[in-house]
Parts: sequence; structure tokens; C-alpha cells
Amino acid sequence: MPIIRVEMFKGRTVEQKRALVRRLTEAFVTAAGVNPDSVQVVITDVDKSDWGSGGQLASDKFPD
Amino acid sequence: MPIIRVEMFKGRTVEQKRALVRRLTEAFVTAAGVNPDSVQVVITDVDKSDWGSGGQLASDKFPD
Amino acid sequence: MPIIRVEMFKGRTVEQKRALVRRLTEAFVTAAGVNPDSVQVVITDVDKSDWGSGGQLASDKFPD
Amino acid sequence: MPIIRVEMFKGRTVEQKRALVRRLTEAFVTAAGVNPDSVQVVITDVDKSDWGSGGQLASDKFPD
Amino acid sequence: MPIIRVEMFKGRTVEQKRALVRRLTEAFVTAAGVNPDSVQVVITDVDKSDWGSGGQLASDKFPD
Amino acid sequence: MPIIRVEMFKGRTVEQKRALVRRLTEAFVTAAGVNPDSVQVVITDVDKSDWGSGGQLASDKFPD
Repeated sequence: MPIIRVEMFKGRTVEQKRALVRRLTEAFVTAAGVNPDSVQVVITDVDKSDWGSGGQLASDKFPD
Repeated sequence: MPIIRVEMFKGRTVEQKRALVRRLTEAFVTAAGVNPDSVQVVITDVDKSDWGSGGQLASDKFPD
Repeated sequence: MPIIRVEMFKGRTVEQKRALVRRLTEAFVTAAGVNPDSVQVVITDVDKSDWGSGGQLASDKFPD
Repeated sequence: MPIIRVEMFKGRTVEQKRALVRRLTEAFVTAAGVNPDSVQVVITDVDKSDWGSGGQLASDKFPD
Repeated sequence: MPIIRVEMFKGRTVEQKRALVRRLTEAFVTAAGVNPDSVQVVITDVDKSDWGSGGQLASDKFPD
Repeated sequence: MPIIRVEMFKGRTVEQKRALVRRLTEAFVTAAGVNPDSVQVVITDVDKSDWGSGGQLASDKFPD
């Protein structure tokens, strides 16, 4: 029943998300010893203008 | 002041969300004994390509 | 696969949490039309000294 | 490494989000005594039709 | 109705949390223009052995 | 700056959490192509009496 939640900058392809779900699930299963079918992963794409670090918007610090 | 947060597949109508907010609030009030005015509900619609289970994207397992 | 997450003040009994899980799940199933087995509920108990509203700690506003 | 997460109604401008990230980071640094560079802020815009309080959708209670 | 959620290392005093709630609320009100009474803040204390960065537990990187 | 958040049943050892942080970070780096130093992982241990599925508390369904 474990839940893995990922917040990352918007922009990954479905192919990258597919790999992410597969690899995070494998990592969890190996480290914590659970049935892979019970693992859920929820991905949240975050705009750079919705993410701040060091007091600055990422869209200002790391423009595309 | 309780907060209820819902993550579910994208695709519910506003009418379903209206019912969801009403029913979840009633359920909380009945079970936990609080004033309904204090209950907040935040709904997050998740794309099937952002949700994984069993190591696979839901968009692959349950295509529309 | 829906996930319901509840944050509330610490202090509910296991009996209240049991009722909460049952009733929130029923509410979700009725409003959104999913299989109850797919619904997960995660409860987080929050200390009043970890919850603020209106700029004040709940432990100051609502002492036990 | 602290993480500040904000959920608010959709509709703020990038300028307001820029101010929000700067001010929340300053507030955190002043109150908790950490290096500002370590503070992350993630903003989530929520539609009024995804937010309920008192059992009602905010889009019904507070139409635009 | 905005919700501010803070995750930080365990160890702050109630006095620091009181200041944090007050200052984060003020920051939000100033930047986003809402009524302070509507702002909620939920603080989560995280053990260093529950926080990783760069692939390492914070309890290993920054022992007390 | 990605954030990975894990919710799982309480009971894993620090050694398992250390492996979890390392493996989830590697999985993320491989699938999404970021610098490992930027990846944060926050683990939340959840009591079985705070987790429900199928309308029942996990502490009732899966007693220790």
C-alpha cells in the first residue's frame, strides 16, 4: 500500500514517466520488501513559476 | 480545521465533485464530530499518465 | 486507486478512525462511482502546536 | 532543506508568486534560523471547483 | 482558505513554531492579499532519519 | 529540486530507509536525468491504525 509521490519540473515525456514509475517501484520493492502490485506512484508536474528556492522563482533562476 | 485531500483520476464532472465535497464533509462530521464549516476539501485531478501502480502507468494499464 | 488524505487534530480514538475510514470510503464510492477496494485513506494526526490559523497556533487559540 | 507548500485559489500573477516565494522564504529564515538557499517553496493553484469548505464547492459559494 | 504546509527537521520549539505561523501568515497576506483569518498553516516535523538528499539520509550527512 | 515523498507502514529500520533513499534517488536520476544532489526524499511512517483500504483500517485487516 505504499504511496510514492513525485514533484518535479514540468517537461518530462510520457516515456520518461513510464521509466520513472517502473524504476521507483523497483527501488521501493528492493529496499523495503513489498509486493510491487501494492506500490502506487503519483507524479505532479510543477511549473517553474510555481517553484521557488533560495527565495526566487525557478522561472527567474533557470529560465528555459 | 480538518483538511481532506483527494487524489483521483481526472474526468469527474463538477456535479460529481459537488457531491463528493458534500458527502466527504458529512462523513467526516459524523465520524469525528466537528462543525461542518471547519472542514476543507481539496481535490486533485491526476492524469492516468501521472499515476502508476504495480510499476506501470495507469494510462498503459487502463487506456481510455 | 483514489487516495483520500485526512489531516486533523490529534486525539481521535481508533474507533473514530475506523468509522472515518468506513464513512469516507462510502462517501467516495457513492459520489464518484469507484470500487471501494481501490480507495485508500491515510490519516495524519496533527498536534495543536503544529497547526496555525489566523496567524496563531491552535494550541494558543484552543487550549485543551 | 525545509519545504513550504502552498495551496491557494488559482488566479495569482507571476509577480504575486514571485513576492510570495520571497516573503515566505524570509519569514521562514527569520523564524526558524536556516540558510535561505535551503528553503524550497512549491505552489499549487487550485480551481474553485476543486476546493470545498463547509460541504460546498468554493465555485458555488464564491462565484467569480 | 489558503493552506501553507511546512516540512522541516524536528527540533524547533513551540516558541519558534508560534513565530513561524505568525510570520508565514503575514508573508502570505502581504503577497497574496487575503484575510489572515483564512490562512491555515500545518507544520510537519521530520526526523533526520526520514529525510534524504543527494541519496543519503540527513542523519548520516548531518549527525546531531 | 525534485521531491520524492514516501508514505509506508511504520516499522522499517534506519538501514532500510538508508537503502530506500539511495535507491529511489538513483531511480529518479536514471529515469529523469537530474543531478542526484538536487533530489530530496521525505519518508512518512504511517501507523496501520491510520491507514485504510477498502473501507477498513489496515490494523484490522492486517494485524501484526
